[in-house]
This record gives sequence, C-alpha cells and structure tokens, in this order.
Amino acid sequence: MGVTQDLARFAAETPSGRLPKSVPHATKRAAINALGVALFSSQDPALRILLDLFAEEGGAPRATVWGAATRTSATNAALANGFAAHLEDYDDTHFPTLVHVSAPTLPAAWAAAEIAGASGRDLLTAVALGIEVCSRVCLAFHPWHYDEGWHITGTLGVFGAAAAAGRILGLDAGSMARAFGIAGAQSAGVREGFGTMTKPLHAARAAQAGLTAALLAADGFTAPETILEGRRGLGAVLSPEVDLSRATEALGERWEIFQDGLKPYACCLVTHPAIDAALAIRSRPGFDAGAVRLIEAVVNPLVPELTHRPEPTTGLEAKFSVQHCIAVALLAGAAYPAQFEAAVVNDEGVARLRRATRLTVDASIPEDACVLRVALQDGTWLEERVEHATGSPENPISDERLSEKFLALVSPMMGEAAAALLERLWRLEGEPSVAGLLP
Amino acid sequence: MGVTQDLARFAAETPSGRLPKSVPHATKRAAINALGVALFSSQDPALRILLDLFAEEGGAPRATVWGAATRTSATNAALANGFAAHLEDYDDTHFPTLVHVSAPTLPAAWAAAEIAGASGRDLLTAVALGIEVCSRVCLAFHPWHYDEGWHITGTLGVFGAAAAAGRILGLDAGSMARAFGIAGAQSAGVREGFGTMTKPLHAARAAQAGLTAALLAADGFTAPETILEGRRGLGAVLSPEVDLSRATEALGERWEIFQDGLKPYACCLVTHPAIDAALAIRSRPGFDAGAVRLIEAVVNPLVPELTHRPEPTTGLEAKFSVQHCIAVALLAGAAYPAQFEAAVVNDEGVARLRRATRLTVDASIPEDACVLRVALQDGTWLEERVEHATGSPENPISDERLSEKFLALVSPMMGEAAAALLERLWRLEGEPSVAGLLP
Repeated sequence: MGVTQDLARFAAETPSGRLPKSVPHATKRAAINALGVALFSSQDPALRILLDLFAEEGGAPRATVWGAATRTSATNAALANGFAAHLEDYDDTHFPTLVHVSAPTLPAAWAAAEIAGASGRDLLTAVALGIEVCSRVCLAFHPWHYDEGWHITGTLGVFGAAAAAGRILGLDAGSMARAFGIAGAQSAGVREGFGTMTKPLHAARAAQAGLTAALLAADGFTAPETILEGRRGLGAVLSPEVDLSRATEALGERWEIFQDGLKPYACCLVTHPAIDAALAIRSRPGFDAGAVRLIEAVVNPLVPELTHRPEPTTGLEAKFSVQHCIAVALLAGAAYPAQFEAAVVNDEGVARLRRATRLTVDASIPEDACVLRVALQDGTWLEERVEHATGSPENPISDERLSEKFLALVSPMMGEAAAALLERLWRLEGEPSVAGLLP
Repeated sequence: MGVTQDLARFAAETPSGRLPKSVPHATKRAAINALGVALFSSQDPALRILLDLFAEEGGAPRATVWGAATRTSATNAALANGFAAHLEDYDDTHFPTLVHVSAPTLPAAWAAAEIAGASGRDLLTAVALGIEVCSRVCLAFHPWHYDEGWHITGTLGVFGAAAAAGRILGLDAGSMARAFGIAGAQSAGVREGFGTMTKPLHAARAAQAGLTAALLAADGFTAPETILEGRRGLGAVLSPEVDLSRATEALGERWEIFQDGLKPYACCLVTHPAIDAALAIRSRPGFDAGAVRLIEAVVNPLVPELTHRPEPTTGLEAKFSVQHCIAVALLAGAAYPAQFEAAVVNDEGVARLRRATRLTVDASIPEDACVLRVALQDGTWLEERVEHATGSPENPISDERLSEKFLALVSPMMGEAAAALLERLWRLEGEPSVAGLLP
C-alpha cells in the first residue's frame, strides 16, 4: 500500500472516537477562526465579483455562502467560502509548512455537510481528519515545494478539502484514494499571484476541487490511487525533493493541528511579538499612552526587512508597518481590522507614536520574540519581553481572545447576532445539522 | 513588455482580417473534428457522471452540452464539452508539443459565444487565436514539461481556453493578460492520471478554468500579468527548462495550427501508417481480403513496443493492436470506433488476418512511415510504402476524409441529421450565432 492509500484509509476509517479529546476542540477553534475571517470578508468587492458570476451562472441553493445571505450550488459555495476565508490573509497557518489549511478544508466540508445533512459533530471529525491529511501531505513537500514558487495552500490544499468532504460523504478507503487522485488532478497555484485576487482564488479552487473530487469519486469516477507517490504523480512534478515518509510518521498519534496557529492580529505575522509586548505594557496599572516619549523595539532582522514603514498612508501599508502596529496596540489595545482603517492610519496621535518608535535589530532574537521598551515623559522605562508571540504553536491564542477576535470581525456586519452565533459555534458538536447555522 | 503581455495583445488585438485565409479554414477543420469526437462521446457513462453532478448542482441554461440535449451554466458546459472532446483520445494533436489543443479551447470559446451571442465567424477567429496562443506557450515548455510528468493539455490548455473565450468577450490586452494570470492560477494535470477519467478531466478543467478566467478578468478580478515569465510564475515551476522566446517567434506570421494533426483512425497513433498502407492495398482493383495469406509490416521499433498485440480481447486492447488495425483496414476499409467494438474484435475473419501478420522492425523507418506487404493465395505480393501517415502535419487528412470521420462518429447517434449538421459546420463562418447549432 502506498502513501496515498494510507492517508485515504486514515481519512475514511479512523473512528471519530479515536481522536484525542483535544483534537475536536482545536478543530472547532480553527473553524471559528476561519468563519470569523470569512464573515468579515463576506461584503468585500473581490468576493462580489465571484458572487456576480454565480448569479449569472445559476445553481441550485444547496449550500450557504457565509454571510452573503445567499445559497448556491455546493461546489460554488465551497469556492466562495474558500475565497473569503483567505482573502484578508487573517486565517490560520500551519507553522511547519505555511499552508493555510482551514481555507480549503472547512468550506468543502461545510458544503458537503449541508447537502448530506451532517451534524456539527460529524463536521468536526471530518475537518479534523482533513486538516491532518492536508498538513501531512504538506510536510512531505515542504520546504522544497514552496521555495520553488508554488502556493502550497492551493496545490496541496485540495487534499484537506477532498479528505474532509469525502469523510462527510462516507467514502470508503478505495473511493477516498480515488478522490485524492481527482483532487490532485486539479492541484494548482503559484506565488506569482501573491498580492492579487488569485492568491485567495488558489484556496477557493482547492476547496472546490476537493469537494468536486469527493462527489465524483462517490459516483464511480476513476482516478489513479497513487497520485502522491506515482512515477508521474505530484511527488515527481511538484517539488525538487519530497519526503513522503513524513506524511504517515506517527499518523493518528501526533496531530498536526497543534502546529496550526490562529492569527490574533490583522497584520503581518512578524509584527505580532511587538504587538503582544505593547498590549502587555498598556495593561500596566496607570499606563497612559499620551505620556509616551520614546519606543524602542529590539527585533529579529526580518521585522524591519518586511515592516519598517514609519509613515504608512493606506490600511494595507499600515498592516506592514511595525511602527503602526505598536502604536495602535498602545493606544487602542487592539490590532483588529478597525485599527487599520484610513481614519486610524491618518490619526495624529497614532502618527506621533509611530514617529517615536526606534527599531534595533538583534539576530539572536527569534522571529516570534522581541523586547519592547517604552520611555514615559517622567523618565520611567517600561520593558516587556515576549518569548513566543500569541498565535504561535508554543503560545496558542486563548479561547477568550479567539472569541474577541471573532466578535471584532463579525459584529460590524451582524451586530448583536454575532455573539449568539459565536455561542452556537462554541457548541458546534451539539448541532444536529450545520445547514442554516450561518447567515 | 513580457511574453505574457505580448501574447495577450496578440489574442486581444489581432484584427480578424489579419489571419491568413487558410487559418480560419484549418480552424474550422479542427472544430469539426473536435465536435465529431465530442458528439460521439456524448452518451458515454463517464460523461454521465459529470452531467449527474451538474443536474444536482443546478445552473442557468446558458450553454449547450454538445449532444446531450441539455443546457447548463457556461462554465459547466465548457467542462463537460472539454471532457467529451478528449475522452476517446481521438481529438487533434499539435505534433511538436503533444498538446490536444482543441479540447480545452473550443468548448471555452463555444460557451462564451453562446452567452455573448457571437457569430460563427467570430468564434472561428477566437478559436484560431486561442489555438495559436496555446500552441505557442506549449512550444516554450516542451519537451521538458511533458517529460517531467505533466499533462500539457491540462496545464497549458488553460491558455487556449482563456485566449479564445477572452477574445469572444472582447477583453482588451490588459484584461487578457490578467485572464492569463487567472488561468495560470488553475494550471493542473499530471500524467499519473493517464488511463483514468482524470485524463479527460484535465482538458475539461482547462476549458472551464480558461473560460472562468476570461469572465472574471472582464469583471475586474486582479491577477499577475506575468504568469509565464514571472519569478514565481509557471516558467519557474512547471518545467526544468523553458524557452519563452519560442512563444513569440514569428508570431502572426507562422501559424501553429498547421502542425495540428487530426487523427483519421480511432486507435493508437503509431498504427496509423500501417492502416494507411492497408487501405491503399485494399483499394487495388480486384483485391479480395479472403485471399490474403500473409501480411508483413516493416515498422519503426515503437510500433511493436506499443502495439504488438496479436490476440486482443477487448476494444481497448484492439486499439493498441497493430495486427487488429491492419486486419480491419483490409477487411472493412476503415478504422473508426465501429471497428473496435467487441463483435469485430471477436470476429473469426478478423482474427485470421491478425494471426497472418508479421512485424519486422527497422529503426531507419520514421514513426509516421511504414512498408506493408501482403501475400495472396495465388503467390502475388502487393506492397505499399507510406512516407507520412494521414493526419500528420506533412500529410493532413483531406476535408472529405474528415467529413467521413465526422459522419462515422455522429451518425449512430443523430442519424440523417448528422449530414445536415456537418453541412452547416462547413459553413460555420456564415452562421449569425452558434447558439442552437448543436443538439
């Protein structure tokens, strides 16, 4: 039996009771995170281009486009939701491989669950197995595949989507292996598209391709059962090197979802340690941002390389300005999308703190760490040291902070109903059906 | 300007009057060939799996699924027709690169033409430009890309589909370059899928991806305009080597459609020279297949390697049996799908001629040539030498033979109406609209 069939059997046959208790909870956290991000993007003009096309093309109302108050065909819903989940680059990241694993996986599973009438518990099991399969395949290809120019979320995201959707549809191991073959026939996405709408389209097409693969495999569509290891398979073409043994090493014992980081802040990942430190300083008794005279951040060299931008003029620039990120953390105590809106970027108080910030590079500081020192007008120095930024696997975001992120993202659109929805999502395993759960 | 933009400008801006007169005619031949093959496959159970999924998923009746008496969304119609056009492996082949260029290109253009209300003349111009763009991109990647394991019809077929559909939709050069970027974001297909339904699915998804790309680009979807040459673009990841200069060398002067071979016989390409020779011998005055005592074929080494199969038991095996191919050519004067049905494969007269056939390998004989000698009971020897098999670029199939192929494929399904349809297709440039042209 090859690795494709091993993973297929794992996805098809692992009894839900065999998942360690912490895995469904971690999966639920990944789902809440992805849903929050996707709902936030549900009114975005980029998504609207896709929805306009769907409206012209038509489709039976089989599955929900999250937050868009519309239902469409299952495969188009998967496409739209995969797009929305990755559009803001605010979704989860499997730290060892950089795959944004939920954006392809959850939408495919959700649409499958809607057409199959699956329960919240079944959804969580399927997504847990899909995330595991996808992360495992990515481990086998990383870093060579990504370094060559491929966007791993598109190319290999198809396997999370196929595994999760296939599980919901009840595929046996043989059909699951064929679903993987059909999914791999659609593996696509290159990093040349970064900075354009094709980046989230990669995640979107992966979601759609994986769901389509599971649906076709269920109907007897034929495909190779060796898509990963075959002589002309993905291992041969998608990467100068692969280590397929990583895909199945301690499979079912070690779970990759615990390497999947949920991003607490709506900005470039390397700014996160400094935001953590700034939030800690802000929470000191009696702290007054108006009294700040000077800010000194000691950071990994990557931080200025990617985010030294003391005078951002747009929201996008501000997301890549560590100075802006520190300033809003000290002033507003948050770094949600609201803190990157034009009015905040142009605020004089924010600009003053950005100008007061000095960066000191220290190569001995890891990427997810930093030291922040804040000098006040009275000469006091406040210092915070962060070892592992919030959202890294070593320091996962708490359930409370995740709830706060969800509400910050979803309340502007849903108002009071956001909190009620969140409460239901935290009890997702008790929902008899996921259909109708989302607006 | 890079090569992507050069090709985009060519596809968007070349006035139809600038095409040499022979190009639209050659394009019409490619279209008739692809339509014949697709109509033949329109009742195939493999296609039915896709159509069943479409029926569940729904869709506005915007475009025709050829021969299926059904209309569906434009993108799904492109998918189904791309699948049907490549399912039998009886479609065209661009000899220098092995791309089956019409299977992705024509369905995308056709569906676009149906929603845009385009004329037959506009369709032919768009398909001509799409075939040219696709063949050009393939020239830049071949042979390295195919040798590595990629299925070029899937991966690079997206560009023919995007160019042709984009032309129909009236994209300007900038939008066309973005359409290429969106198309390239969906480039997929590996040779591991050969022998399964994923092989035609590659062509199908390429058709759908290219059409989707053109539709999204028309609506302002953003994408890189450097998908071929960019640092993280397809040239960097899809092939160990590329020569992008080939994509634009003498563009608009030398036309690649004249390298696109239309397959006269429904079997493996390397058997075609022997079939040509057998047909020529059969047409000698007074020839009687019952009097054949011995058959000797002097062939390129590839012929026995791929098709030495003196006792095939299924239609598929017979398509890879040079002995069967020669036998039916001598007996029936044809090698259409009918000659590979079970009854013919099991016919004793056919089996006798297969057993009477000897192969002699001669490395000096090119792949598209052969010598055939037939000994009759009275001691006479008949000999035919073929220099270039029918359907190769050096010896294109005649319009009459193409008509015969179309009717052989389509008449079983459409009866008398096949001839009337064919007549309209030969005058395609005079049709004010392609909508409703096909059943």
